[in-house]
Amino acid sequence: MSGSVGRPRAAVVVTGSELLTGAISDRNGPWVAEHLGELGFEVSHVLVVGDRPADLADALEFVRGAALVVTSGGLGPTADDLTAEVVASFAGVPLELDEPMRAHIAGILAAWARRTGFDGPALEEANRKQAMVPRGATALAPVGTAPGLVVTVPDGPVVVVLPGPPRELQGMWPAALAAAPVAELLAGVPAARSRSLRYFGLPESEIAATLRDLDTTGIEVTTCLRRSELEVDLRPEPGVSTDALADALIAAHERHLVSADGTSTDALVAAGLRDKGWTVATGESCTGGMLASRLIDRAGSSAYVDGGVVAYSNAAKTALLGVPADLIEARGAVSPEVARALADGARERFGADVGVGITGVAGPDGGTDAKPVGYVCFCVTTADGLVLARDPRLPGSRSDVRERSTDTAMHLLLRAVRG
Amino acid sequence: MSGSVGRPRAAVVVTGSELLTGAISDRNGPWVAEHLGELGFEVSHVLVVGDRPADLADALEFVRGAALVVTSGGLGPTADDLTAEVVASFAGVPLELDEPMRAHIAGILAAWARRTGFDGPALEEANRKQAMVPRGATALAPVGTAPGLVVTVPDGPVVVVLPGPPRELQGMWPAALAAAPVAELLAGVPAARSRSLRYFGLPESEIAATLRDLDTTGIEVTTCLRRSELEVDLRPEPGVSTDALADALIAAHERHLVSADGTSTDALVAAGLRDKGWTVATGESCTGGMLASRLIDRAGSSAYVDGGVVAYSNAAKTALLGVPADLIEARGAVSPEVARALADGARERFGADVGVGITGVAGPDGGTDAKPVGYVCFCVTTADGLVLARDPRLPGSRSDVRERSTDTAMHLLLRAVRG
Repeated sequence: MSGSVGRPRAAVVVTGSELLTGAISDRNGPWVAEHLGELGFEVSHVLVVGDRPADLADALEFVRGAALVVTSGGLGPTADDLTAEVVASFAGVPLELDEPMRAHIAGILAAWARRTGFDGPALEEANRKQAMVPRGATALAPVGTAPGLVVTVPDGPVVVVLPGPPRELQGMWPAALAAAPVAELLAGVPAARSRSLRYFGLPESEIAATLRDLDTTGIEVTTCLRRSELEVDLRPEPGVSTDALADALIAAHERHLVSADGTSTDALVAAGLRDKGWTVATGESCTGGMLASRLIDRAGSSAYVDGGVVAYSNAAKTALLGVPADLIEARGAVSPEVARALADGARERFGADVGVGITGVAGPDGGTDAKPVGYVCFCVTTADGLVLARDPRLPGSRSDVRERSTDTAMHLLLRAVRG
Repeated sequence: MSGSVGRPRAAVVVTGSELLTGAISDRNGPWVAEHLGELGFEVSHVLVVGDRPADLADALEFVRGAALVVTSGGLGPTADDLTAEVVASFAGVPLELDEPMRAHIAGILAAWARRTGFDGPALEEANRKQAMVPRGATALAPVGTAPGLVVTVPDGPVVVVLPGPPRELQGMWPAALAAAPVAELLAGVPAARSRSLRYFGLPESEIAATLRDLDTTGIEVTTCLRRSELEVDLRPEPGVSTDALADALIAAHERHLVSADGTSTDALVAAGLRDKGWTVATGESCTGGMLASRLIDRAGSSAYVDGGVVAYSNAAKTALLGVPADLIEARGAVSPEVARALADGARERFGADVGVGITGVAGPDGGTDAKPVGYVCFCVTTADGLVLARDPRLPGSRSDVRERSTDTAMHLLLRAVRG
C-alpha cells in the first residue's frame, strides 16, 4: 500500500463468488468508491473476492494500510455468507449473538413470512446467523434483513461492513457515515473539490497532447473514454485549485465540450427540453426502445417525454409512424430519408415538439457493401422546422452499435434543444 | 494468496482511475473472470486499481501466487497509461521499442487520421508510446491501436496484458489464449464442468435450508439473487459430478425452476417464440421501452419481434394503441384493465401473435394509497385467447422498479410461450 499524498486512503472489498463467474456485475464497488471520493478519500483499490474465507482475509490484510475499508456482501443467510466472521477474526475479536438485533430481525422476517408464505426452520436459522456481531462493533439497523457493522481494527482501518444488495447498501450508507468511528475519521478528511469536463467526439490522444503542455502540479488528472464521450477528471490535493487547468482545457477544445462541470448529457437534454417547454417523441428501429427508455429513466420525465414507437419491421414503420412504403422500397429501411420520416412520424403521431428517428444495421447480419454493419441514420426534427441529420458508421458489436447509436441520438437531440 | 484445491488459480487486475470515481463501471473484470472460470481456473480476486504505478505494482505483488494474471487497461496514449511499464518492472525486464509494431500501429493511425482529420505530433507520440514492449514478451496485434502483451514472470505468474475498451479486450482474447506461454498453461488445467440452476420467485433462505440437508462435498455452491431471479452455481473439483446435487435441487423447488442448465430467461423466451412461430409486440408505459429493447438485444430478433409502443402519456395510449379514453378515466392509467388494453392494442396494431402490456407507478412521485410507488400492472395476451395478468407491488428505486418490471414481464411472456 503506497503512502498517501495529502488525502487519506480508503479501499473497497466486494465479496461474492457470483461476481467472479461473470453471472452479474458488481454495482457496489463503483458506487462506494464514488462516494468515498466525494468525501475526500483517495480510493486505492476495489477488490472483488469470492466467498472463500481465506481469500477475504487476504484481501483485508492487503488493504490494512488504508484508513477506511468498506466491504459489501456476505451478510446473507446462506453458508457462503462469511463476512462478519472473517472481519471479526481480522479485528481479533469473537462473534457474539446480539439479542436485541435478533429480535429486530425476527420482526422483519415475520412480516415477510406472512406476505410470501415462506416460513419455518430455514427462517429461524437465517435470523440467528444474521444477528451475530463482532464484540465491540457498532451494528447498523437492517434495510433488508441483514444488519451492517462498523468495526475498529486495532492498528488497522475502520471497517464498514455493508450488505450486498445495492438497495440495502445504499440505504444503510447514511447510518454508516454517522456511526461514531466513521464520523471521527471523516472529521479529519480534507474536503475534495474535484472537477469534471465532458467532451463528445474528441480523441483521447488530443487531450493527452494538450495536457503535456499544461501545468498539472498537485492535480491528479484522469481521462476516461466512454464510447463517444471523453470525461476528464481533475482531483486536486488539498489547497490546490483546478480553475486554471480547467479553463485551459475548456479553451483548447471548446467545440467538443459538452459540459464544464461534469453535468451529464442526459441532464443537459432534460434541462434543455424543460427550458424550451418542449416534449419529445422517438421513432426507433435498431435501438429498439433504448433511447425512449434512457429519456424516461429520469424522474419527472413525463413532463417532456410523450413516448415513442419501436418500429422494428417495415410494416410497423408504415402502420404506426406513417413512413411511406414506397420510400422504404426506394431508399431502403436504413436510409437518411427513412430516419427523417421516423422523426417526423413520431413527432406528429405523439403531437410532440421534437422527434428523433433512428434506423441502422446493428448486425451481426444484414450488412451490405453500401450499408455495412454499424451504418446508422439519425434525424432530429422540430415543429418549427429545424432538421439535424447524421449517418455515421459506428464500430463494435451489436450491443456496442445500439449503445453508441443511443449516445449519438442524445447528442443530436442536445444540439436541437440548445440551438 | 490461499493454496489451490484442485484447480489452478487466476486473478484479474483492472486499471483505471475512472473506475474508482464511479464515472463508469468495470465490464472487463466480470467478462475475464467468467472466461477464466470456463477454462477451468479458480478465479481468486478481481482487483480494480487507479492509474498510480505504485498501486498497480502492489496489486501485481498481491496476486504473485496465481498461475495466470490478466490485466486490462492502461495501454492508451495518455500519461496515466502505465501498465506496460509496471508489468515490465514486475517481470524485471526493460521496455523496448518494437519497431515492426510501431510501423503496424502507424498504419492504423494513418487511416484513422484520414477519416477524422486529427493528425500531427499528438498522434506520433501516441504511436511510439503504444509500441513499447517488455523485453522477451509476446506482443498481440492491436484490435484498436494498442497491442496486448503476454509476459512470463520468473518465479511468478504468466501475465496477460490487455487493453481497456471491452471491444478490444474481447477481440484480443483468442490471440491471448493462443500465445505460447498461455497455451502451455492451459494444457495443464483440468476442464471445469460447472452447472447453473435458475429460479424465479424463490427466496435465498429456502435454497440455504435445502442445501444444509444435501451432500455438497467437493462442490463449491454459490447462490446469487439478482432482482427476482436466483441463480445457483455448482462448481465441482476435478473428478466430482454435480448430477446428484443438481437433481436434488431441481426436485426441491420445481415450481420455481426457470432452467436446469443455466439458460437465461431471455434465451428461453426467444426459443419459445421461435418454436411457436410467433411474433411479439409491446405496449409499455413505466418501463418506457426497456422490454422492447431487451427483446431486440438478441441477434436475429427481427424474426420474432414486431416492435412496440412507448405510450407514456394517456393521449399516446389512446392515439397509438387504441386504449379507450373512458377506460383510463374510469380505472386509471395504472390498472389491470389498461395493462390488458395495452397488450391487446400492441398485438393488434403490429399484427403480432402475442402482446405485452405494462403500466405502473415507477416513482419517486405519483404514488397514492391505493396505487403506491412500485405498483405495476402486467398483461400478456395472445391471438388465440390466452390472457395472463399480474399486478404486484415491486420494491426499490425508480430504476429498480423499472428493471424488476421488465423481468416480471419477461417471465409472464415465458409462461405464455411455454403454455
